[in-house]
Amino acid sequence: MASGVELTVPVYRLKGSGHGPSVYIQANIHGAEVQGNAVIYQLLEVLQRQELYGDITLVPYANPVGCNHKNGEYTLGRFDPITGVNWNRMYHFNQALPGKFVETFPDADTSTILETFQQWMLDDIDDQLDHNIFGLTTGRRIAYQLQRMALQADLVLDLHTGPISSKHLYCPEYARQSASFFDIPHTILIPNDFAGALDESTFCPWWDLQQAYKNIGRDLSFNKESFTVELGSQELIDLDEALVDAQSILSYLQAKGSIADNGFEPQEMTRYGCYLKDYKVFYSPMGGMVDYLGEFGQPLAAGQPLARILRMDNYGDPDANPLHYLTLDQTVIPILHFASASVNQGTELYKLFSNYFELKK
Amino acid sequence: MASGVELTVPVYRLKGSGHGPSVYIQANIHGAEVQGNAVIYQLLEVLQRQELYGDITLVPYANPVGCNHKNGEYTLGRFDPITGVNWNRMYHFNQALPGKFVETFPDADTSTILETFQQWMLDDIDDQLDHNIFGLTTGRRIAYQLQRMALQADLVLDLHTGPISSKHLYCPEYARQSASFFDIPHTILIPNDFAGALDESTFCPWWDLQQAYKNIGRDLSFNKESFTVELGSQELIDLDEALVDAQSILSYLQAKGSIADNGFEPQEMTRYGCYLKDYKVFYSPMGGMVDYLGEFGQPLAAGQPLARILRMDNYGDPDANPLHYLTLDQTVIPILHFASASVNQGTELYKLFSNYFELKK
Amino acid sequence: MASGVELTVPVYRLKGSGHGPSVYIQANIHGAEVQGNAVIYQLLEVLQRQELYGDITLVPYANPVGCNHKNGEYTLGRFDPITGVNWNRMYHFNQALPGKFVETFPDADTSTILETFQQWMLDDIDDQLDHNIFGLTTGRRIAYQLQRMALQADLVLDLHTGPISSKHLYCPEYARQSASFFDIPHTILIPNDFAGALDESTFCPWWDLQQAYKNIGRDLSFNKESFTVELGSQELIDLDEALVDAQSILSYLQAKGSIADNGFEPQEMTRYGCYLKDYKVFYSPMGGMVDYLGEFGQPLAAGQPLARILRMDNYGDPDANPLHYLTLDQTVIPILHFASASVNQGTELYKLFSNYFELKK
Amino acid sequence: MASGVELTVPVYRLKGSGHGPSVYIQANIHGAEVQGNAVIYQLLEVLQRQELYGDITLVPYANPVGCNHKNGEYTLGRFDPITGVNWNRMYHFNQALPGKFVETFPDADTSTILETFQQWMLDDIDDQLDHNIFGLTTGRRIAYQLQRMALQADLVLDLHTGPISSKHLYCPEYARQSASFFDIPHTILIPNDFAGALDESTFCPWWDLQQAYKNIGRDLSFNKESFTVELGSQELIDLDEALVDAQSILSYLQAKGSIADNGFEPQEMTRYGCYLKDYKVFYSPMGGMVDYLGEFGQPLAAGQPLARILRMDNYGDPDANPLHYLTLDQTVIPILHFASASVNQGTELYKLFSNYFELKK
Repeated sequence: MASGVELTVPVYRLKGSGHGPSVYIQANIHGAEVQGNAVIYQLLEVLQRQELYGDITLVPYANPVGCNHKNGEYTLGRFDPITGVNWNRMYHFNQALPGKFVETFPDADTSTILETFQQWMLDDIDDQLDHNIFGLTTGRRIAYQLQRMALQADLVLDLHTGPISSKHLYCPEYARQSASFFDIPHTILIPNDFAGALDESTFCPWWDLQQAYKNIGRDLSFNKESFTVELGSQELIDLDEALVDAQSILSYLQAKGSIADNGFEPQEMTRYGCYLKDYKVFYSPMGGMVDYLGEFGQPLAAGQPLARILRMDNYGDPDANPLHYLTLDQTVIPILHFASASVNQGTELYKLFSNYFELKK
Repeated sequence: MASGVELTVPVYRLKGSGHGPSVYIQANIHGAEVQGNAVIYQLLEVLQRQELYGDITLVPYANPVGCNHKNGEYTLGRFDPITGVNWNRMYHFNQALPGKFVETFPDADTSTILETFQQWMLDDIDDQLDHNIFGLTTGRRIAYQLQRMALQADLVLDLHTGPISSKHLYCPEYARQSASFFDIPHTILIPNDFAGALDESTFCPWWDLQQAYKNIGRDLSFNKESFTVELGSQELIDLDEALVDAQSILSYLQAKGSIADNGFEPQEMTRYGCYLKDYKVFYSPMGGMVDYLGEFGQPLAAGQPLARILRMDNYGDPDANPLHYLTLDQTVIPILHFASASVNQGTELYKLFSNYFELKK
Repeated sequence: MASGVELTVPVYRLKGSGHGPSVYIQANIHGAEVQGNAVIYQLLEVLQRQELYGDITLVPYANPVGCNHKNGEYTLGRFDPITGVNWNRMYHFNQALPGKFVETFPDADTSTILETFQQWMLDDIDDQLDHNIFGLTTGRRIAYQLQRMALQADLVLDLHTGPISSKHLYCPEYARQSASFFDIPHTILIPNDFAGALDESTFCPWWDLQQAYKNIGRDLSFNKESFTVELGSQELIDLDEALVDAQSILSYLQAKGSIADNGFEPQEMTRYGCYLKDYKVFYSPMGGMVDYLGEFGQPLAAGQPLARILRMDNYGDPDANPLHYLTLDQTVIPILHFASASVNQGTELYKLFSNYFELKK
Repeated sequence: MASGVELTVPVYRLKGSGHGPSVYIQANIHGAEVQGNAVIYQLLEVLQRQELYGDITLVPYANPVGCNHKNGEYTLGRFDPITGVNWNRMYHFNQALPGKFVETFPDADTSTILETFQQWMLDDIDDQLDHNIFGLTTGRRIAYQLQRMALQADLVLDLHTGPISSKHLYCPEYARQSASFFDIPHTILIPNDFAGALDESTFCPWWDLQQAYKNIGRDLSFNKESFTVELGSQELIDLDEALVDAQSILSYLQAKGSIADNGFEPQEMTRYGCYLKDYKVFYSPMGGMVDYLGEFGQPLAAGQPLARILRMDNYGDPDANPLHYLTLDQTVIPILHFASASVNQGTELYKLFSNYFELKK
């Protein structure tokens, strides 16, 4: 930083016996999304009493610039205060790598592929970090250093929260079976398109590599999975709830064989999925002050009010209305809403599942 | 504003029959404290079916600069974004006025005093607004225009909220009897010291005037009261709760004779008071992420934890602790806490009643 | 906005005789980049004494949300304070439109194409503005409304400034001949790739359309040009300099036949160009406080210091240096630098021409 | 901070021979006012070749919270981003101390007074820092720790800058003779009123003590002086100009006998003074965009334009004017102006000397 302060990030590495998939878990890449740090605390507390099959790396406070940056009372949520760029859109992705790799190693065995392709990706990241005469943005430097660690794991969990939000999960389409191991009732299934986030930056290369081998007639599977786990609302620390969320993650790790079986089972619940293209943002049609009505996680029938907007400037005006009810003409499930009651026309009011379906195990 | 946009404020004036005290109610002088607008909405809905004895003026969105100013997702809470000055510390107070008035009108009757002193104050405000060759700050211009309206009423209510907060009331010491008309369990009794806020700027001059007459042997009473009503948490609009708060205000207005008796009675509840000097701010002894534990409105025994602070950077350090419990060595009642879980050393963590007592009617 | 204030934008339309290309000029889409408003003022003053061949539309304060948004003393420069999205990356572009158009009208004459394709684009924008059940972001609504006006003109000028900056011009590669009509010594030649900005959103569709017709063997030209004109530094109004810049724009308009010949000629100067890919950002290799040394517009030889960074925390440390000189190993021309002396590692320090060349008329 | 990062401040202590007054110099208590760090750099470079009579303590980056806090591209200038409180209004002042001291030590000799009263003040500060069960704000903790060092020196210099500003000096009225040792043409003479700043917090107690001894008939002098040195504009580092300012400070230190005579002499220049009450803020009478015209440091005759405000929304309106010239009806000297061209009604536009006079040595 300007005064010469060096910001560092604590990294906890737990050693496994080596016969299970390795794990990387980070929290707080967005400044206001702090609850993941509490989940990592609870995970560390529980994991020291478990038998680990895979190495587990845990990184709280992943973005020390973001998590120390106050704008008024609140922590600035989602973007670099200087550039406006979302901290979770700065990971690296080299589209050309998988094709070039398959060309170079058309016949390699799976374990050679796993090891060598990982090394290619690490070298590619190192190139970005170290060999750029014009330098690198603050956000990319942070992101690439984290991604360097994440790329060395088989399973990647990026712990986030929404603004005011229920729990939900971003899951690659191919890994939908794994969504049911988490105690999270709502899952967004995301396609193999890189848009800058950590989960995409770690699973897309392997998905692409699999496709590239398929194109030359080989049907391989690399058992790499990445999830963005949305733990609830931002600006909150709740250590008791963090223990609940830690249990949910342990259930996933046990199911994947990263830790020994010790009774970490997913809860029974109805789980809903929807495709990313059907995960809709509802923008406010007007400025005003919002009484949010749509209950999280519950189907809201067409025509039922999602919110009502107070417009005191319209009070007493015969041609206007001080209360506007917002509805949709289809059934949706509200997942999260904006953090503030004051909105402009065009503010992202709600995020909603549309065309959702039940996720079966 | 810079682009030439003119910001205006809606003012609703309801005419009374003239044989009860007049009322001024404003909301949202602090940008993020929006719930008062919803209370004014509910008051307007109810009042149009009541018989009014005094004139009632209602001003939502009292500070249009503040309530439209976003810093990230949130509305900037409490101060002018350019100068840092608290929007509720810019009202006018002329300490010399009461003394000069009593010198000029030592023998005037009460109604002449009421009318003439009010006019002196209005003229004084107008002087500030209009005859200042070097101009006036943004905040003072807004404050003085509001104060001009407030000074014309007998009863003044300034609707605020805390950051994350229970309901509480700021009440002048001399008006403590009136605190029990509100459905608010916690009251801070404030002395006759002007510190810049609207309530003080409207009751202190009259209190001083009363003292000044007492000094020349006249014992007068002017029946002026001003309160800051803290409705709960900022960044929230809840129209149902607003109706509850409107009922509480109507109970006060009925008790004071501003509206006809129509069954608006205060709820039975234990009401606690504390003096302003005992309304304590508890500052965080360290930076970290806070799990707020102290329950609002409930006495917290000495030694019970107010909050615990998570310090993941200390995890695994044998000389440090990742969880710090914060306690006090006296019983307090937590009233509100900071809006964010991320704090620096020295952040205002909690506001607390100490040395509190039961307020009897 | 939240309080119900409606923000509007002044639009000035000057009617031409109709036998010259029409013009659209806007300013201040980025909040802090205000000098374009002064240029529009001076253009309006001069244009009322000129003979106009084409219609001219001028829009100052194009983004009233941005230009009224203060963060501390400064106006928030470049992005939506809520979402972080750059205000100049939200224009609309429908990649499929040109291909579909050529399929539908393979043999239409040029004037039909000009009129009909423009109408297609306007209809497409209207669709976005009006037929979106989930609504539209604040920034897109502003951008689309501006773009709707810009798409109706032949020549589009978007007036910007850098942070602390010399004058420079963004010019489509195909229109490089026109760069010499402006009194601007440095021009960035941009390819036909849409990245969200107004200039791209208005010239790319026509460039694509031209290519699509070329693909079916027709060689058409539509005489559409769009430029981003960077007037110097942000946070400054200088009406005298604005008159100089207005003359430069008038010289372009006269050269294109939008106004009658009245002696508006470009100044003699050496003009340099560089391709967008060679317009480099230099990121700070460390946090610290920067003494900017590289002079704008002058070639800086390899090895000459671009800046020196003060690191007082290193003072007296035998292993570190309180002053770091930043150099490059190639000749560059500094065009602009960061607005503040305090930088983090990774802050965008300078933008530079590399591999530049002289632009001949 | 929230992530556990500890912010520290570098402190440089140079040892003197002990027969001259000791010196404390700090810089950058306001985040954006960085040039003082460069002056401290140049002072350190020069001082290591000088003979020191008094100890000299130099503290750059005095406020590491402020100087690392970005709001958009700029560093947040003057206040705590959470509370809005000006970082330079949080120093400690105990009005009762001097009176109590004189009561306790009515007959002590000067050197006992100097030593013991200093110790009283240090103990008082330590009490605030360490014995406060409810804690201390971030800003007070920073301020008190700095003040603790400053109180141990005889001469205190607090290095600041204005927003966009000429050089000027805040000087206690009793120390006006010393103003002429600095190469600064404009001096504000401040009375003995504590308003929260470092200079006041260090000289007011001694001034009060002197008065208290005078009241019992002793006429003592303590040779304590404190100045706020305004170096020019914020957000700028200029190492060459910093050397010029270092020379000016060395001239003062030589004159006071803190360093050996080595030819550091003040420049010949006309120096102007004005009393604090005549140092006027001119607030903008309207929102708009400002072309600042008043030249710093030069008397501006009554009626001459200080600035012109562009209001494009008025263009073409027969009842309004797009350009407003701002004038005063008295001669003033503009000293600094606001940092941005975009202003609201009521923004602090200029600070001006009125009723100024020539300061003679």
